[in-house]
Amino acid sequence: MQQKPVLHTLLSPRLLDLYEVNDSIVVIIDVFRATSTITTALYNGAEKVIPVSGVEDCIAIGKKLNAVTAGERDGKIIEGLQHGNSPAEYPRSFIEGKTLVLTTTNGTKLLHMALDRGASEVITGSFPNLSSVCEHLATLNKNVILGCSAWKDRFNMEDTLFAGAVISKIKKYFTVHCDSSLMANDMYQLHCNNIYSFIRKTTHWHRLASYGLEKDLEYCVTADVANVLPQYYDGALIVK
Amino acid sequence: MQQKPVLHTLLSPRLLDLYEVNDSIVVIIDVFRATSTITTALYNGAEKVIPVSGVEDCIAIGKKLNAVTAGERDGKIIEGLQHGNSPAEYPRSFIEGKTLVLTTTNGTKLLHMALDRGASEVITGSFPNLSSVCEHLATLNKNVILGCSAWKDRFNMEDTLFAGAVISKIKKYFTVHCDSSLMANDMYQLHCNNIYSFIRKTTHWHRLASYGLEKDLEYCVTADVANVLPQYYDGALIVK
Repeated sequence: MQQKPVLHTLLSPRLLDLYEVNDSIVVIIDVFRATSTITTALYNGAEKVIPVSGVEDCIAIGKKLNAVTAGERDGKIIEGLQHGNSPAEYPRSFIEGKTLVLTTTNGTKLLHMALDRGASEVITGSFPNLSSVCEHLATLNKNVILGCSAWKDRFNMEDTLFAGAVISKIKKYFTVHCDSSLMANDMYQLHCNNIYSFIRKTTHWHRLASYGLEKDLEYCVTADVANVLPQYYDGALIVK
Repeated sequence: MQQKPVLHTLLSPRLLDLYEVNDSIVVIIDVFRATSTITTALYNGAEKVIPVSGVEDCIAIGKKLNAVTAGERDGKIIEGLQHGNSPAEYPRSFIEGKTLVLTTTNGTKLLHMALDRGASEVITGSFPNLSSVCEHLATLNKNVILGCSAWKDRFNMEDTLFAGAVISKIKKYFTVHCDSSLMANDMYQLHCNNIYSFIRKTTHWHRLASYGLEKDLEYCVTADVANVLPQYYDGALIVK
């Protein structure tokens, strides 16, 4: 019998070096809101999304490529950029055919860390593209790290719930031994039928809801509403 | 109305600097098995337990104080030390009146990290002394960090379950906003009635049970069987 590949769940970017990154597909998860926004922009026809770490890079690349610049720090639009980190800002009527250059607090940071550590493949995951992520991982027969972007390196609930949603759907294809995966799966099973009310208890909800973002956050925990697979290729996230 | 103190749950020693350690009581949690062993030795009349980081320190201090030396790396007794990290090795008939010098993989490391960062008080917690820990924290009106020792910096289930047990008993006395505490509380509520079977699913169980330690591990998730409060004072853990 062929040995199954291994699946791990990373709970904070700070712990990334504990895992065999260069032998794994890394799924970057930043439910509120970077990876939800990325899949939405691509679903609505964006040509590509370029994730960058810093604001200056974002402005420079945006100018060079005549692209849309967007970014958020601590949940707010950054001065000097054109747009924020809300999926609602990227309907087809606006983003189709365009390039989006995006910088965020947590998600783009983890993505670059995974690239720096030589991940064999980097994709992004969020509830809006849950099924695409699961189908991709289930067919490849490679080791997987579900990478929660967390909040400034602290554990967060929403990324963990998404990791649990993935595990609950594809665990039969993997060896899943790590306690963080066991926990994520349990948390998802416990709350999958009341996710809109449960998510209101999280710290990130309280942080962002105070900016009037409730509708955004509800969209970000809705499965398969922008169901494409953003894959990192040649400096950008694209749909192949 | 007086503001309640804040309670946080730390999921890995690697994340300790994200918290306000110097304004908090830190509860060191290493369920399998350091903090279970510490409370058991003290409950059975040990004069004190000296937690040390390194094996050489352990041997040197043991010699100087004519004390019992004990330690474990990766679940096994260390060569050069007299005893291991099993609570069963420290019955009253052996340990009463003696000093135990102990070094372990995860628990003693986090304890020293908390001391180095200026924790206002350090105590140890485990299921065998659950009630003592809860009573102490509930009465003090100070900020608390429930510090899971984890496994080589990776999240572990058993320490998280203990944090959840504490939170479920004393949350009314605290402001509990962090997602890791919310998760720990949920995990404990989900499994408190089947803890002996659930704990068999964890990575640490599989690691240690292969050394024939099942009875030890069951003891380590049993509440209040060695119910004293180990407090760090003047270089050692003692019962005041």
